[in-house]
Amino acid sequence: MDTKSAMKELTTRARRAARELSVISTEKKDRALVVMADAIHSAGADIKKANEADIAAARDGGKNAAFIDRLRIDDKCLGDMCAMMRDVAGLRDPVGTVIATVKRPNGLVIEKVRVPIGVIGVIYESRPNVTADCAALCLKSGNSVILRGGSDAIMSNKAIYEAMKKAAAAAGIPDGAFILVEDTSREMVDSMLDASGDIDLIMPRGGESLIREVTAKSRVPVIKHYKGICHVYVDSDADLAMAEKVCLNAKVQRPGVCNAMETMLVHEAVAEKFLKDVGSKLLQAGVRLKGCEVTRRILGDDVAPASDDDYHTEWLDLVLSVKVVSSVAEAIEHITKFGSGHSDAIITRNKEKGMEFARSVDSAAVYINASTRFTDGGEFGKGAEIGISTDKLHARGPMGLEELTSYKYVVYGTGQIRT
Amino acid sequence: MDTKSAMKELTTRARRAARELSVISTEKKDRALVVMADAIHSAGADIKKANEADIAAARDGGKNAAFIDRLRIDDKCLGDMCAMMRDVAGLRDPVGTVIATVKRPNGLVIEKVRVPIGVIGVIYESRPNVTADCAALCLKSGNSVILRGGSDAIMSNKAIYEAMKKAAAAAGIPDGAFILVEDTSREMVDSMLDASGDIDLIMPRGGESLIREVTAKSRVPVIKHYKGICHVYVDSDADLAMAEKVCLNAKVQRPGVCNAMETMLVHEAVAEKFLKDVGSKLLQAGVRLKGCEVTRRILGDDVAPASDDDYHTEWLDLVLSVKVVSSVAEAIEHITKFGSGHSDAIITRNKEKGMEFARSVDSAAVYINASTRFTDGGEFGKGAEIGISTDKLHARGPMGLEELTSYKYVVYGTGQIRT
Repeated sequence: MDTKSAMKELTTRARRAARELSVISTEKKDRALVVMADAIHSAGADIKKANEADIAAARDGGKNAAFIDRLRIDDKCLGDMCAMMRDVAGLRDPVGTVIATVKRPNGLVIEKVRVPIGVIGVIYESRPNVTADCAALCLKSGNSVILRGGSDAIMSNKAIYEAMKKAAAAAGIPDGAFILVEDTSREMVDSMLDASGDIDLIMPRGGESLIREVTAKSRVPVIKHYKGICHVYVDSDADLAMAEKVCLNAKVQRPGVCNAMETMLVHEAVAEKFLKDVGSKLLQAGVRLKGCEVTRRILGDDVAPASDDDYHTEWLDLVLSVKVVSSVAEAIEHITKFGSGHSDAIITRNKEKGMEFARSVDSAAVYINASTRFTDGGEFGKGAEIGISTDKLHARGPMGLEELTSYKYVVYGTGQIRT
Repeated sequence: MDTKSAMKELTTRARRAARELSVISTEKKDRALVVMADAIHSAGADIKKANEADIAAARDGGKNAAFIDRLRIDDKCLGDMCAMMRDVAGLRDPVGTVIATVKRPNGLVIEKVRVPIGVIGVIYESRPNVTADCAALCLKSGNSVILRGGSDAIMSNKAIYEAMKKAAAAAGIPDGAFILVEDTSREMVDSMLDASGDIDLIMPRGGESLIREVTAKSRVPVIKHYKGICHVYVDSDADLAMAEKVCLNAKVQRPGVCNAMETMLVHEAVAEKFLKDVGSKLLQAGVRLKGCEVTRRILGDDVAPASDDDYHTEWLDLVLSVKVVSSVAEAIEHITKFGSGHSDAIITRNKEKGMEFARSVDSAAVYINASTRFTDGGEFGKGAEIGISTDKLHARGPMGLEELTSYKYVVYGTGQIRT
């Protein structure tokens, strides 16, 4: 069978399941999630064994440590998956929620009611926990999902998937509610991206090049973020101790993720003191600094000169661009020009400047006095995330259950006609 | 200048305006809408004169009566445009509304706040009132808009646009808030569809072929509906007098629009009585009927046989497909197979069957005991509409101010860092 026909078979199963899922009870979905968590727990040894095979293959293939770190399923990772499923079971079911009610002068009552989107496609790379996260979120929100993980994680994904599938079937969840695409060929991805009408939404998760390729090719709507060039702006009215703590956290705690700080902006009035304090700590933590002229005058030769290209760069590493600015307006200008619309923070005690920053910075998440690292489905109280969006249509920021819904209008009448 | 550069100039102006519009006060926007309404009123004679020129050209070009009817601006149409603008001025400004607030265990307060989308593109055909509707809705929702109307309405559109533009400038609205594309060439449309990143959303309005072309070509996200194959299902528990009134309204009152009924489904238990009653009235109103076997047995040779193709057809005319079904489930099946996800109604006194229909019919608007003709921004209390969506991402059904917004998360902290 060619990949197009194979994909059609999968989407047909998924569509059928989606119709059933859209009307099954919250209780049934929650029960299924709990038994799926139990099943992953019970299958722990098998999952880890499959994961070891993937890791061995990755090592043989010459993958680097960061790659293998993303691929690895240890006991903590297994435990997190199970906890996430139970969390999602405990969240409010968005399906059927009445978002708004309007009563019209003619007596019509118009309810805006949340409904599932339908069939979701997820294209991801080597993190096997995405398999569990996406299956759980889609199931709870009444969507079916087609999961296409990378070939490097296929053994791990299959082990997780088999455990979940058996448990879900026993709990009465329809076949096709979540489907792992076992053919990891490029042609199969292309067929997925071509399945306009059969898949309602594609969420790509992974590196920028994967996401750009998916977005360029897809005939199915895509929601995504390309990258996170996140800024922390330390205002003249900042609590500098807080600023230091936040900047260190945003840069150092986990530099390889999209919500880590890539550029630090500092108001000139506090630059001398703040940069000297935080600069040495960043250097101690192994961070390489790239700064503007003023930064270099203050910190000396420890700082390489920063170009516009540097300010456009998502380092995903222990590297930081630094710039001294003369106002909150200049900070906003810089972020507008160089940012990626992901997550940006201001540290200030001045409420007005905080609000100006929040209003004018056009990013998915804007922080006043907190680290950018919180842009995450779990941290936002969504249990998990199917992805993070820097798009402005449908959903923005971390996407959880609500963001996996659409709505319909249900209109209650007593025989009204239009005149 | 080539069309690509010309479009870039327009989108650059629009983007600059969008940034300003996103933070200007509600009062300023509302004042501008009122003076724009006054300006259209004052320019009434000029607008009608320009419209007469368009109509004369359309007549010379051999356009039919329906086309000229859509193109014509009479005093009622002018009055409606002014009233719409004042209505929109009176609606609540969605920008800045807090949709949800979450307080996290770590003390972070996360607000989900409505923000404008940015730059909207509207591609439409020969209805000049779209120019005013879209300018008003986009202005109030803080978006800039690039309006590309059809060449047949260009004189009318220009007259409306000039009146609005002068008034808006006097009211302090930034240049570029709404821009009429005066070059009505196809190349200019192509440049618009290619302006990914410069335009955030394209709304095509017009016939199915225009919308299919725009959707196929566009690199900018598109929200649209292709067509409205709307059903009214008359249940065995229907109030038949109400059913008759609703079906006549849904078919006859304005057959050329997307929310008119195209197929009538009738439960077999009431088919004999109902079809005989309503059939003669439909025929009297000039409606041609196409029916299933049972319909034809009841109504005789006045009814032509209906094929699957007929059930797939949006007549936009005094033609109606009819089918007798044996249950609400069969009605839902038929709508799932042949419907377009636009607007579908059930007429029943049985609340449970009404709710089953509302739950299972996957359409933008589902009516219980009312005419499908109400699917309209004005009728839904939205003042006007920028379009109607049968998509499931971002917005569904009639799109007004709220549907022209995105959101951002504003996170208030006290120095929180991630551990």
